[in-house]
Amino acid sequence: MTTPEAREEAVLEAVRKRREQVNEAIPEELPIQRPERLYEASRYLLDAGGKRLRPTVLLTTAEALADVDPLSEDYREFPTLNAETAGSRSAADTSGQSEAPDLIDVMNAAVSVEVIQSFTLIHDDIMDDDDLRRGVPAVHKEYDLETAILAGDTLYSKAFEIMLETGAAPDRMVEALEVLATTCTKICEGQSLDVTFENRGDVSPEEYLEMVEQKTAVLYAASACLPAILLGADDETVDALYGYGLDIGRAFQIQDDVLDLTVPSEKLGKQRGSDLVEHKQTLITVHARDQGVDIEGLVDTNDVDAVTEAEIDDAVSELEEAGSISYANETAQDLVAQGKGRLEVLPDNDARELLCDLADYLIERGY
Amino acid sequence: MTTPEAREEAVLEAVRKRREQVNEAIPEELPIQRPERLYEASRYLLDAGGKRLRPTVLLTTAEALADVDPLSEDYREFPTLNAETAGSRSAADTSGQSEAPDLIDVMNAAVSVEVIQSFTLIHDDIMDDDDLRRGVPAVHKEYDLETAILAGDTLYSKAFEIMLETGAAPDRMVEALEVLATTCTKICEGQSLDVTFENRGDVSPEEYLEMVEQKTAVLYAASACLPAILLGADDETVDALYGYGLDIGRAFQIQDDVLDLTVPSEKLGKQRGSDLVEHKQTLITVHARDQGVDIEGLVDTNDVDAVTEAEIDDAVSELEEAGSISYANETAQDLVAQGKGRLEVLPDNDARELLCDLADYLIERGY
Repeated sequence: MTTPEAREEAVLEAVRKRREQVNEAIPEELPIQRPERLYEASRYLLDAGGKRLRPTVLLTTAEALADVDPLSEDYREFPTLNAETAGSRSAADTSGQSEAPDLIDVMNAAVSVEVIQSFTLIHDDIMDDDDLRRGVPAVHKEYDLETAILAGDTLYSKAFEIMLETGAAPDRMVEALEVLATTCTKICEGQSLDVTFENRGDVSPEEYLEMVEQKTAVLYAASACLPAILLGADDETVDALYGYGLDIGRAFQIQDDVLDLTVPSEKLGKQRGSDLVEHKQTLITVHARDQGVDIEGLVDTNDVDAVTEAEIDDAVSELEEAGSISYANETAQDLVAQGKGRLEVLPDNDARELLCDLADYLIERGY
Repeated sequence: MTTPEAREEAVLEAVRKRREQVNEAIPEELPIQRPERLYEASRYLLDAGGKRLRPTVLLTTAEALADVDPLSEDYREFPTLNAETAGSRSAADTSGQSEAPDLIDVMNAAVSVEVIQSFTLIHDDIMDDDDLRRGVPAVHKEYDLETAILAGDTLYSKAFEIMLETGAAPDRMVEALEVLATTCTKICEGQSLDVTFENRGDVSPEEYLEMVEQKTAVLYAASACLPAILLGADDETVDALYGYGLDIGRAFQIQDDVLDLTVPSEKLGKQRGSDLVEHKQTLITVHARDQGVDIEGLVDTNDVDAVTEAEIDDAVSELEEAGSISYANETAQDLVAQGKGRLEVLPDNDARELLCDLADYLIERGY
């Protein structure tokens, strides 16, 4: 288990086992009911697949906090933390609060986060008028615009309803719902910034990272801190886990931008360098522009089908010479190292180890 | 104050005074912040006007429950109910719960409900591709499709964030958020049913009323019961107020359908009978079809600009002969009478009187 390949294999196996559990829970928490067409459209993208990385982060964090052997729980309910482990929060709770329940249905929180992710993808695909997602037609293509907007809106409120069924004590539930609501607001703000940036030629790396934090990383941050809130961890633990999620979420997005340039088209499942052709801003291009590279002139065509591998090779060489790809790689690595460091608030156990390996996987994955 | 005109005038004045308070609170709870374009688009429809009927119902219910003189409070904070008034809920709360706060910012709940209403209007206008709303361009026309979807999504989570700031005790807050989430889900389900009904020629009056309940009435129901939940009333009061909202909300929608046929075009601000021309299902048409009237043949044209007043007159006469307009009027009147009856759970005060008058106004209003 010491070679990088063996470690990646172990992470993938851990993700797969948790994904199976999440895939079982989704139809239970979001059954197809009347009006059927609305709920079928709401489930369409969820049923089409997905790695379930955010629910995996959430469930593994719960395992680490509860200090149980990975996958030893039934994956619905986890024990709340005792007064000693829970620290100041629990001490405050004893002053007149009702007794906290013993078991929390953390899987509901995991499904809630995946449902939010699915709602944002459905609405994003409408906004970008993308045809395909997860190898199937986007919801507004498979159904229609009306149904896709409504399906996203339905998932939005269902995520809150599902979170409300974790069985957590009211004060913790309020805190969890606060995280869910502010996370959704930030995702919208990040998406709006992303749209604004498309028409701007002077986005700085710092602005780009802020956008990525809001658009992508906050949902990882929510995933990591929600079990701490629900199980009754102290504020220090909640904050550290939120930071871990922000760090690995930003690293994940930066790595996505790097892979678009470095992974062969066959393996990527789309034209390598399509971000460059489509003039999408990434950490790499905003850095290169700062270094004086003429980003708009890197590739001559706007047409993904017309670009040649040689053109992409030349563009990548120029970005390498400007140090922009190394800059992105190093930024992602620094974020992952920072994120892993924050996990010291957790008990030293196998689940914590897995959260470290998950962080590494997000930037070491080949595609 | 005993003539119908004087009573209507008094209701309109009461609504106007509460609307002013709501209009002041909206920019406080939903300030224009970065990214500005997103928040400007989110506020666009809210700032364009609206009667604020739902917040008025919510605030007046709070006044009635707190048993204060109408408009005597500062319109942000209302006292929670004492143990005697609050009944069983409060008795349960004393067993180990933290002490409830003394003042609840009910205005936040009122703004939250109006924000939800605004989100649904923005997304509905996209779905129907309507050009105008409240006399200004729809958000997706004034801005663009992308911004309108995002503005709606932003209002959605902001409504939860704003509700979370009422200062209610955690157990009541959880109940309020539950009402908000399930209300949003039902609105989506109702909208989906409405779309499905457009392609069906056999919708029954019962099915139509179910659709109206989900699409329109649940937000009135939430408005009426939320102050009871937040101020700590007992379950009987919460349920009765929810029922009052459902009743007057359905009556409101039915009256809208009647007015489309009976109010002159000039006063209506659009072509009288446009629902008939556009083959929109209403309680009137589904009843008439049950009576054997050929609904599709009532008006020859599909073009609102081509229809004549004489054609509409003939269609209305046929619907009157089938008893369909009286049926709609009677159904609305029965619902209002039923809703007013439910208000007996409230203390006998001026605010309760106003809630009765509001119910009457919804079906007696001329347009």
